[in-house]
Amino acid sequence: MGFESVMIRLELTNGKVSFGDVAQAVGGCGGDIVATDVIRSGASSSVRDIAVQLGRDGYEEMVETLRALEGVEVVNVSDRTFLAHLGGKISIRPTMQIRNRDDLSRVYTPGVARVCAAIANDPKKAYNLTLKRNTVAVITDGTAVLGLGDIGPAAAAPVMEGKAMLFKQLADVDAFPICLDTKDTEEIIRTIKAISPIFGGINLEDISSPRCFEIERRLQEELSIPVFHDDQHGTAVVVVAGLINALKVTGKRMEDIRVVVNGIGAAGVSICRMLLAAGVGRLTPVDRDGAIVRGGAYDYPMWQWLAEQPQVGNRAGALSEVIEGADVFIGVSRAGVLSPDDVRRMAADPIVFAMANPEPEIAPEAAIPLVRVFATGRSDYPNQINNVLVFPGIFRGALDCRAGEINEAMKLAAAEAIANVVTAPELNEQYIIPSIFNEQVVTRVREAVVRAAIATGVAKRIPPDFREPAGEKGGVLHAAGLA
Amino acid sequence: MGFESVMIRLELTNGKVSFGDVAQAVGGCGGDIVATDVIRSGASSSVRDIAVQLGRDGYEEMVETLRALEGVEVVNVSDRTFLAHLGGKISIRPTMQIRNRDDLSRVYTPGVARVCAAIANDPKKAYNLTLKRNTVAVITDGTAVLGLGDIGPAAAAPVMEGKAMLFKQLADVDAFPICLDTKDTEEIIRTIKAISPIFGGINLEDISSPRCFEIERRLQEELSIPVFHDDQHGTAVVVVAGLINALKVTGKRMEDIRVVVNGIGAAGVSICRMLLAAGVGRLTPVDRDGAIVRGGAYDYPMWQWLAEQPQVGNRAGALSEVIEGADVFIGVSRAGVLSPDDVRRMAADPIVFAMANPEPEIAPEAAIPLVRVFATGRSDYPNQINNVLVFPGIFRGALDCRAGEINEAMKLAAAEAIANVVTAPELNEQYIIPSIFNEQVVTRVREAVVRAAIATGVAKRIPPDFREPAGEKGGVLHAAGLA
Repeated sequence: MGFESVMIRLELTNGKVSFGDVAQAVGGCGGDIVATDVIRSGASSSVRDIAVQLGRDGYEEMVETLRALEGVEVVNVSDRTFLAHLGGKISIRPTMQIRNRDDLSRVYTPGVARVCAAIANDPKKAYNLTLKRNTVAVITDGTAVLGLGDIGPAAAAPVMEGKAMLFKQLADVDAFPICLDTKDTEEIIRTIKAISPIFGGINLEDISSPRCFEIERRLQEELSIPVFHDDQHGTAVVVVAGLINALKVTGKRMEDIRVVVNGIGAAGVSICRMLLAAGVGRLTPVDRDGAIVRGGAYDYPMWQWLAEQPQVGNRAGALSEVIEGADVFIGVSRAGVLSPDDVRRMAADPIVFAMANPEPEIAPEAAIPLVRVFATGRSDYPNQINNVLVFPGIFRGALDCRAGEINEAMKLAAAEAIANVVTAPELNEQYIIPSIFNEQVVTRVREAVVRAAIATGVAKRIPPDFREPAGEKGGVLHAAGLA
Repeated sequence: MGFESVMIRLELTNGKVSFGDVAQAVGGCGGDIVATDVIRSGASSSVRDIAVQLGRDGYEEMVETLRALEGVEVVNVSDRTFLAHLGGKISIRPTMQIRNRDDLSRVYTPGVARVCAAIANDPKKAYNLTLKRNTVAVITDGTAVLGLGDIGPAAAAPVMEGKAMLFKQLADVDAFPICLDTKDTEEIIRTIKAISPIFGGINLEDISSPRCFEIERRLQEELSIPVFHDDQHGTAVVVVAGLINALKVTGKRMEDIRVVVNGIGAAGVSICRMLLAAGVGRLTPVDRDGAIVRGGAYDYPMWQWLAEQPQVGNRAGALSEVIEGADVFIGVSRAGVLSPDDVRRMAADPIVFAMANPEPEIAPEAAIPLVRVFATGRSDYPNQINNVLVFPGIFRGALDCRAGEINEAMKLAAAEAIANVVTAPELNEQYIIPSIFNEQVVTRVREAVVRAAIATGVAKRIPPDFREPAGEKGGVLHAAGLA
């Protein structure tokens, strides 16, 4: 995907080799020198660092080619991805410096005792007087990490730290990674409940299906802070955002379309639920055994729930059968399950979101000529379905209004907010989803989430920017008794 | 103790009241204006903030007095201790800014997958590639918080956050507070084990006795990272440091003295153990039922263990009996249990460490004329026994050498290092313990702890500054197979 890069330190013997020779060798191996620094320049040789953007073949062959050049010594190769991880990707910062005993007596003993006593007397004060107000735990058991699967809690940490970085940079949410050394559903639930008092929210991450459903459901019931399994809902929110805009492009309406969702795991179930909440006309959930049909009997409670929804049809069959005439294909399954012939048998102006990782359900090159709108989870094609668009703004909103939960209305509001960041003049087949670096995203998602939380009665606080000016009466905020 | 201060915002009507009137009113209530700012100055009135250092009576009466003054309106009173806690005392900081997709692809997907895979293949790499290397969990169940007792996990958070601030500022250790919503010994052990993979060490805090012994012991056995209950060992290390220097002042030797330790709870047990490790001649542990005697039978395993130590005598009786002839009194019990008459019956040059909080076992004013060396846990008398001297340097050392545990040798080395920060010319009755702001303390404790960890075989890494120059052979580091 062209993102990997390395730093290579070279010693070049003067008169034997030029920097041009080095650049040519790098280019010949598919690399691209994006930066260079002279570290030392002497009478007989010079030492240079070169930052190389790699091609698809990695750097091993390139380093061998450089080593073979007359007058070149490869001093060191630093993999920039590994370098970025050395010592971890987040640290703790005190909000103030303790300069003297006076400071110490306020933030620690003896002064801190008054603050503790105030919280003991009124537990709500924890939101004002501790880090709870702004802090989310990013919790995994390491069982479903990226495309790597069950790699264990310690190996999952770099993903959780990366997420904590994004939480902070994009939404100023303090997030701390917790990696659980247990896969037992009950023990995971018990552990998260036990450590919950310091946190204002719980972001579950990379927990395998079907345990993730029970863990999230139970925690939502048993904790009064929001609990959000990002693999389920983050993806679903962006999918719905993308679909809202894809329908604008094709001129179709949500209530008129039939959507095939292929892969009914963690993300697939949440996508189905959100589509139903968004008012989709007909829904065909498909897993390895074929379509889930209305009235069928299924082992998994979530599949059974889907089989009871009126929007789910009764046409059985494999994906290649039920895809016929569908307006939309949404894949969260595996590479290659959707054939070009399947796409040709969809309704006019087909919309295909093929999000299997790293290889989509249908190769982009094969699909793009056949469809009207195409999206993947990858960043090297247009329309990337990326849940980085979701979790920072959703938690920013939920924390700001102290929402007791993140409900379907809040997620749907987030999807609409993401869709609306793309303006009508900007909208086209290649641009249905805003960039994760678009600064509007978090602001708009936060605002939509807070409004939806207030409207559905789960907000325990009205953020200052949602309060009506003093003197005015009525309105939703006063009606909620929270202003 | 003279540390509390408040910010008071006043609106003063011009011509009706002067700033001098305000200062006089504040002074009359025992306060002291330490800073003032003019916020607004108008034709008819001005608004000022005054920072007031309070006397022993707090600020309520002062505010009432100010309100009663002609021409004064009290706009606002901000308690500076509470102000320092607003929104929490620590936050998360990413170690780098994600500026573009290239950065993102290194710290998050897809690049992060290679880092995760590297840790899955070699779990030790978690120390290089995640925050584990520098991160400690500060964990409490909120059952024994300061002098407040069992105030619960949420109310304990400000103490844990304060500790995290100190860890970072004094020793650059990243510490995150975990407040457990359970008091069950087995569930606490299970929970801490479950969340341990991300952490490089566990600092247990404010967990009540006797559960704290079992919790610490089991975690030490079952985890391969250091586990340290600060209430037990932090205090003990400073006590031993202070005693080492007090003995220098009095010219006595550890092996010749008899020490009475009053209060055999969390801290008292650890003090007794460390005194024995330090080579104390005779030890008299005393609790509410009187002295623990050699050969006696006791319910608590730790008391039974003490009763089996040859240094523990067989003289029974209450504190006022067994104190007779003792060289040293160490109190971690409650206010007023040691009378002036008790002190008069101690051996010559008595050493008294009275550490009950907030009121010591004997009032300093009563004790000081009778003893040679006096120490308390308070900052308003000389010789404060404060475990802030210990935990930052101990964990800095343990993390740097990846110690699997913090053993008795490491704690004793820390005590000696703290004692040695006070040089011979500086040492006197009023100065046996260095200030927590003395920058030598963490450096010296770290160094001593690393040396002791290497010597006792618990170090899994030799920090660069402890490695011998290349080319040299032999020595303790090479012998340990770790260089």
